[in-house]
Amino acid sequence: VKTSTVSADATERGEHRHYMSKEIFEQPQAIANTLQGRLADDRILPEIFGSQATAQLADIESVSIVACGTSFHAGLVARYWMEAIAGIPCQVEVASEYRYRRHVVPKEALFVTISQSGETADTLAALRQAKDAGYATTLAICNVPESSLVRESDLVFLTHAGPEIGVASTKAFTTQLVALFLLTIALGRLKRLDAAEESKLVALLRSVPAKLKEVLALDSSIARLAEDFVDKQHTLFLGRGEQYPIAMEGALKLKEISYIHAEAYPAGELKHGPLALIDEQMPVVAVAPNNALLEKLKSNLEEVRARGGQLYVFADFQVPLDEGEGVTVIRLPETNDLIDPFVFTVPLQLLAYHVAVLKGTDVDQPRNLAKSVTVE
Amino acid sequence: VKTSTVSADATERGEHRHYMSKEIFEQPQAIANTLQGRLADDRILPEIFGSQATAQLADIESVSIVACGTSFHAGLVARYWMEAIAGIPCQVEVASEYRYRRHVVPKEALFVTISQSGETADTLAALRQAKDAGYATTLAICNVPESSLVRESDLVFLTHAGPEIGVASTKAFTTQLVALFLLTIALGRLKRLDAAEESKLVALLRSVPAKLKEVLALDSSIARLAEDFVDKQHTLFLGRGEQYPIAMEGALKLKEISYIHAEAYPAGELKHGPLALIDEQMPVVAVAPNNALLEKLKSNLEEVRARGGQLYVFADFQVPLDEGEGVTVIRLPETNDLIDPFVFTVPLQLLAYHVAVLKGTDVDQPRNLAKSVTVE
Repeated sequence: VKTSTVSADATERGEHRHYMSKEIFEQPQAIANTLQGRLADDRILPEIFGSQATAQLADIESVSIVACGTSFHAGLVARYWMEAIAGIPCQVEVASEYRYRRHVVPKEALFVTISQSGETADTLAALRQAKDAGYATTLAICNVPESSLVRESDLVFLTHAGPEIGVASTKAFTTQLVALFLLTIALGRLKRLDAAEESKLVALLRSVPAKLKEVLALDSSIARLAEDFVDKQHTLFLGRGEQYPIAMEGALKLKEISYIHAEAYPAGELKHGPLALIDEQMPVVAVAPNNALLEKLKSNLEEVRARGGQLYVFADFQVPLDEGEGVTVIRLPETNDLIDPFVFTVPLQLLAYHVAVLKGTDVDQPRNLAKSVTVE
Repeated sequence: VKTSTVSADATERGEHRHYMSKEIFEQPQAIANTLQGRLADDRILPEIFGSQATAQLADIESVSIVACGTSFHAGLVARYWMEAIAGIPCQVEVASEYRYRRHVVPKEALFVTISQSGETADTLAALRQAKDAGYATTLAICNVPESSLVRESDLVFLTHAGPEIGVASTKAFTTQLVALFLLTIALGRLKRLDAAEESKLVALLRSVPAKLKEVLALDSSIARLAEDFVDKQHTLFLGRGEQYPIAMEGALKLKEISYIHAEAYPAGELKHGPLALIDEQMPVVAVAPNNALLEKLKSNLEEVRARGGQLYVFADFQVPLDEGEGVTVIRLPETNDLIDPFVFTVPLQLLAYHVAVLKGTDVDQPRNLAKSVTVE
């Protein structure tokens, strides 16, 4: 019996040693599947959030997103999109915080929950509370059709990521980003987006699967890079704007499966504390910094060079820094700022994965973590 | 010349070995000074935010707070107060993030900046941007009367903390909390607070200096506790609600001066990642958990007991846990939830201070950090 289970397992994993690796590589397809049936030529289809969606979203004036863990990071990315693209105010909160405080419910607000399983205890409790609190309508972004979150929400968007087995979420995250990008367009169209802009955004979204295939080609070079991290106890991830939540997600992946104490900071906060920590045990990973920010990081790192500070830059442009001297650059395919969060997520997933493999941890089932946190 | 400087320095520090220690112990007085002239018997005085304050605050419908570092943590505490006490929506953002993204300006919004020096580059730049962006009015909370932030804001509240020399901010933080508590009352009075509630809140605020004196009496027991942390490389701080920002502030202090990689998490997120990291090198500090949360933390920690996970609980009630078996309880004087952020800040400052002293770091001038970050 045991042999047969293992072999079924191996078949499902195909050529991949772990589910996590399989799931990382499935992302172009998972995103294509999630877009499938949601787009017309140059616009999003009506009612992709439910048959009453157009009516229910028409008067929405603000968005409140509540989620946990990786899904919370997807929500944080959406905040930047919602305010910059749709011009709609957006706030994002950890579910366990939201449900235990007295908060003001904004007028005509859409309450959005995000959960891969749809059974995350705190998120579900927050939804139940919100339904009594006076939100205009509720929307669940979820990967499991028959889940509690889906059943109990007014509107639903199902990510079509397929089953996710690895405890560290990967394709669920990037398909949640797809859902949130589509929601941004849907709400933006009711506000200030015109057809030409919508068409441009839809084209960008369609380009994501091909871009991610390009990024996945970096796998073997990131596997080599992972060797630099395997003996480290700490890593600092820095991002700015919609890449700050991506830095948070990169840090969380490394934490979850490699047990390295990784932490993310908004790049501008470096000098307000964490700079004091940096030494050869704490490399700094900069996610998509612009050139000006890079210059500042570089000068900050020069201050700690004597302590062995190392900078790793993931960038989609020609970085104007000399490699060596404590700087390593990982060049990603050029893309558009708006879809950068997709593109930069993948190499950070790969980095965490390869570090964990080198460390020999239980990649798909990290110690003390559950796939769905169904208790508080 | 050098000798004379050192001696002047020593005089100023009085009996204290470092400015930071002096400044921690000055907090009861600094808070009393900050309240001085701001309160009548059972209410706050009008116009404490400026001679036009009543008129300028009358129509305020929401509050946006922007700051960096420790001041950002003060803002995060205020969010809980504003929404729970005043019933006014409040958002808080890191200045370097705020200024580099497109955001929606809420209607009739008060834009609040917080900075000890009033010269923090990102905060000042954010204020200048906000003045063009359509906020109803601007308010600076600052410790330096002649600073740029004060000169350029419509309304001003000066904290009377006195000069703060230690790079790691202590009394500036708790006096910023006083300012924000007063602002909460001022705005609440315009919304839903009645005179009886105001009177209760004012009495609570008046009780803070005496409470902090009680907490400061824990100094020597916290100095002993610090021995447990001195050889650690990591610490995880957990908090919930308005104590989550206090956990963040506790982690930041430890980072800044002891160079221990401390990180704060909202308590409910523990199972979404950081639980995998916990071992004898990463003690867990729980800040003011309630009993239910404590039970959950305890059961989580039991999962990692084999790896040596240690829990330190700072609580103002009788904790229903047996000490020993990986649990240490530090009992604080009983107080009211609303002023708990003041009370719980102090022992975390003392902990960071004593750990740094034991490690022999340059407490008042930690490596690579400046007192005011006047460049971006």
